[in-house]
Amino acid sequence: MPEQILLEQVVDKVRPLIGSGKVANYIPALGNVDPNKIAIAVTTADGQTVGAGDYLEPFSIQSISKVFSLTLALSLYSEDGIWCRVGKEPSGQSFNSLVQVELERGIPRNPFINAGALVIADLIQARQSAPKHRMLEEVRKLSGNSHICFDKNVANSEFKFSARNASIAYLMKSFGNFEGNVDTVLKSCFHYCSLKMNCADLSKAMFYLANRGKTLQGHQLITPVQTRQLNALLATSGLYDGAGEFAYRVGMPGKSGVGGGIIAVIPGDMSICVWSPELDQNGNSLAGTHMLEHLSQSLGRSIF
Amino acid sequence: MPEQILLEQVVDKVRPLIGSGKVANYIPALGNVDPNKIAIAVTTADGQTVGAGDYLEPFSIQSISKVFSLTLALSLYSEDGIWCRVGKEPSGQSFNSLVQVELERGIPRNPFINAGALVIADLIQARQSAPKHRMLEEVRKLSGNSHICFDKNVANSEFKFSARNASIAYLMKSFGNFEGNVDTVLKSCFHYCSLKMNCADLSKAMFYLANRGKTLQGHQLITPVQTRQLNALLATSGLYDGAGEFAYRVGMPGKSGVGGGIIAVIPGDMSICVWSPELDQNGNSLAGTHMLEHLSQSLGRSIF
Amino acid sequence: MPEQILLEQVVDKVRPLIGSGKVANYIPALGNVDPNKIAIAVTTADGQTVGAGDYLEPFSIQSISKVFSLTLALSLYSEDGIWCRVGKEPSGQSFNSLVQVELERGIPRNPFINAGALVIADLIQARQSAPKHRMLEEVRKLSGNSHICFDKNVANSEFKFSARNASIAYLMKSFGNFEGNVDTVLKSCFHYCSLKMNCADLSKAMFYLANRGKTLQGHQLITPVQTRQLNALLATSGLYDGAGEFAYRVGMPGKSGVGGGIIAVIPGDMSICVWSPELDQNGNSLAGTHMLEHLSQSLGRSIF
Amino acid sequence: MPEQILLEQVVDKVRPLIGSGKVANYIPALGNVDPNKIAIAVTTADGQTVGAGDYLEPFSIQSISKVFSLTLALSLYSEDGIWCRVGKEPSGQSFNSLVQVELERGIPRNPFINAGALVIADLIQARQSAPKHRMLEEVRKLSGNSHICFDKNVANSEFKFSARNASIAYLMKSFGNFEGNVDTVLKSCFHYCSLKMNCADLSKAMFYLANRGKTLQGHQLITPVQTRQLNALLATSGLYDGAGEFAYRVGMPGKSGVGGGIIAVIPGDMSICVWSPELDQNGNSLAGTHMLEHLSQSLGRSIF
Repeated sequence: MPEQILLEQVVDKVRPLIGSGKVANYIPALGNVDPNKIAIAVTTADGQTVGAGDYLEPFSIQSISKVFSLTLALSLYSEDGIWCRVGKEPSGQSFNSLVQVELERGIPRNPFINAGALVIADLIQARQSAPKHRMLEEVRKLSGNSHICFDKNVANSEFKFSARNASIAYLMKSFGNFEGNVDTVLKSCFHYCSLKMNCADLSKAMFYLANRGKTLQGHQLITPVQTRQLNALLATSGLYDGAGEFAYRVGMPGKSGVGGGIIAVIPGDMSICVWSPELDQNGNSLAGTHMLEHLSQSLGRSIF
Repeated sequence: MPEQILLEQVVDKVRPLIGSGKVANYIPALGNVDPNKIAIAVTTADGQTVGAGDYLEPFSIQSISKVFSLTLALSLYSEDGIWCRVGKEPSGQSFNSLVQVELERGIPRNPFINAGALVIADLIQARQSAPKHRMLEEVRKLSGNSHICFDKNVANSEFKFSARNASIAYLMKSFGNFEGNVDTVLKSCFHYCSLKMNCADLSKAMFYLANRGKTLQGHQLITPVQTRQLNALLATSGLYDGAGEFAYRVGMPGKSGVGGGIIAVIPGDMSICVWSPELDQNGNSLAGTHMLEHLSQSLGRSIF
Repeated sequence: MPEQILLEQVVDKVRPLIGSGKVANYIPALGNVDPNKIAIAVTTADGQTVGAGDYLEPFSIQSISKVFSLTLALSLYSEDGIWCRVGKEPSGQSFNSLVQVELERGIPRNPFINAGALVIADLIQARQSAPKHRMLEEVRKLSGNSHICFDKNVANSEFKFSARNASIAYLMKSFGNFEGNVDTVLKSCFHYCSLKMNCADLSKAMFYLANRGKTLQGHQLITPVQTRQLNALLATSGLYDGAGEFAYRVGMPGKSGVGGGIIAVIPGDMSICVWSPELDQNGNSLAGTHMLEHLSQSLGRSIF
Repeated sequence: MPEQILLEQVVDKVRPLIGSGKVANYIPALGNVDPNKIAIAVTTADGQTVGAGDYLEPFSIQSISKVFSLTLALSLYSEDGIWCRVGKEPSGQSFNSLVQVELERGIPRNPFINAGALVIADLIQARQSAPKHRMLEEVRKLSGNSHICFDKNVANSEFKFSARNASIAYLMKSFGNFEGNVDTVLKSCFHYCSLKMNCADLSKAMFYLANRGKTLQGHQLITPVQTRQLNALLATSGLYDGAGEFAYRVGMPGKSGVGGGIIAVIPGDMSICVWSPELDQNGNSLAGTHMLEHLSQSLGRSIF
């Protein structure tokens, strides 16, 4: 199991890569982050969390929130209730998910592309009177950190530039695969994405993925089978159009966000979170991916 | 570890599904197979092979051969020599790989779609004077069965209906990503696909994928790192447009063929081969997938 | 020049085709039309209008309104002001214009597909305080019929099922090619489409296309060059994905609507309007196209 | 009707545009042409031909030959025999015709895109024992110039770089829409394209398009109806992805070739050929289009 010193070595080894990627700047609120931040945290099977670098500094988790929202949906719906509305296959679209949604008549390829996340948020909205509040509570509980908040500034900024997501939502609506009010669901979605958490929070919160569905607090959040399935989906679709490369180099189920965070899991062993704001051309944290690659090599551990 | 009796239970449980799928019939030579055949074989970490059903009856391995040809290419070329010509990402195209090859300027998404397998065959052809002979020898050695042969009838039949594959090859040639003579490479490719092997042969031959690259005969065929990478590619792209569903249900790296065979691997534990000729709508063996799913559940084992 | 009797012959010849097409029923308000209606009206160079069949019965002009809105835009903007935001090429997309808008970064192919009509409506909205009122006035003036009205029922019904058009508008907005409020522009657009006019009204109103830009009332609505250009656009893009077939069979610039109307023009000679509610597979009036084909053959006139 | 002096004015006015386009250089044999060549020739209703600039200098007619081959096919097959294998619609594909052929299951959109021309050549090959010889004879007869030849150098050079066309042909073959031997048909096609003719030859040869199907020599080559239909197809699909713009600016049915030639027609009035080797971004002669535009404006003539 990784010790503090190993994590520090990983951070030091990868730090020189800072400068090779590009911070997401499609909204100003994200573009202002310090590109020199770099962090890793690991929660091991015994429930201990260790970290290195800026692992206690919160960042915008962005699409990593899609893991939380899918988990929430799994607790609200039957398997069929979810998978008749969203697929389980990698999108394989380097250009754009909108074309796919059109060609496949309103059914997004998987819950981790934007279209899929909107469907999941629509499902949650239909069953929850206060979905944003519920999500915040859940995330605070999972990480044991009651100070976690939404970054309203980021959420509002996303909404201002949400034309593309609105287009996707309306397209799905035209195919009968979107029930709620588009603006309301978009706002929920952007709030989930705007959660600010640090690497320690995230590695703790994701522990259930490494622990057959049981949280750090001992609560069975989802079943072991659901956990296995969720990990499978993360392995094939968690890293946008870089899932194959990530499996090839890192070999762990994972999920990235444009805030520069990536969570990853070795089932039975550990949950991990890395953070470095600069992204590669697929929109995944460049140094973050390298940290996971080094960690995997150092430990000689992966799922393959 | 699975015993004979468990495999027989798996076969018996799944046998009633025969009749729900469709035998591949795009060439007559394939359409003539008996749809009632059903088989499983497992080679465990200690090198023992057990089987049930028709596990000693040879069938057309078809696209399973793409694992052998990629392995051969890995031994002939540097990493860069291969991955500059073919990608590592799931294709995610339910409609067709030709569109993708066009949009991505001649670079196939991964080595397991047709376009990618043609590039791999082109790479082999450029370095091997007698690639078909070499492939046959390799496969005989890996499985320890010197009676394995090409089915010339199937190979010739495929060639007669190869217009679509020729179209893909010429398209890649137009982008500068195909060097050899199209007909020659197509013929090699169809020969690899026409190999007749039984489930026992295949589970033995694929043992290196479960054994960090070392064959059943103790030969280090590829490095442990290459093995891990190959398994990662199989996990994300080995089952056409059903890779996500397969990961979700079975949770093992695998590769299917339209002959109804599927090989799968639990790294460190076992290599498996199942066979049932009827296919699901993604072109993967319907009962075969169910056998793997049951085996995974019975053993409580998967990579997730 | 066609006389009453010729038009009656055309109607009689084509009437047996009623029953071979399909009335548009994506909104109830359109589906309720009597499919047996059939009509033709011609306004000749000397300003006379003759008609046959139900040529005095008003119907929903739908996309024929796109000719009026483009004409209005031509009077409000410079050439560049329009053509930097919408193309002049046939769409050639049998599947869907949304894919094209995505691939061509928010610029619709031409002003007669839905995406293009939305951009034109957006342009009008930016320069007109009361665009719906203005459009109504214009159309009444052009046809000399002050009783022409919007069908509010149709307009509201369209708005209720407008998710797909909203999706297109938001997609263009995401590329910076849509300025106004999406709902407001959609509502204007649906009002234009809901105009109820009869064949006589429409052949009169479109007379300027046959008369070098001068209306029946002697007003120079657009320049002769603009008129020639507008006719050229109608010839290449006026009939959705059936423009080539229409040119081949009818040989006139034209514009169809899903209400079953088609307007067509022989520059210098006449403007024509036909109506029959049942549509062919391209969404153009089936019997309407045949009436134009017969008229063209009878008169020995076309632009080719 | 245009006199010599008008044509000279047109050439002089447009000559300064030389330098703004790009000579086709995908094969060396085409890239060697002198970019300063510029020419126009007109054959009027009375059968007289006048020209200006380099109108007696032969150039590679390239895709203009598709008009001749479609005309030949019209004389060999019934209407249905042709139009069940190729469409009549503009392709509207800025990216590539291969995607369209795939999506529309082997049926090219029209006879003037590469895929369509290959189908037409395949049709001719099936009915003609010596199609290249027949084509040459026909073209010599139509233009009254017995010195017209193929440029074998160009034809062979095209064949050497024909992978993309081979890909398209094999794709259509895979859909059952290509009968002949791919290499043989490609060679015929490239020979047709390699014809060397001058502007006077071409304006004479195309005279039948302006003369209701009757050639300059008084032979009824195709019927008046077929002529009208052919002109309609040229108007909607003759200029690749620039057909809409060409109709808008020039307003005549036309066909361009990458050798820099364009033929155009005002039915009943005249056939025209212009030549200037530099192309615009759609692959049509840049100065050539401008010459036609000026001629149309000067004469106040177009089909609209």
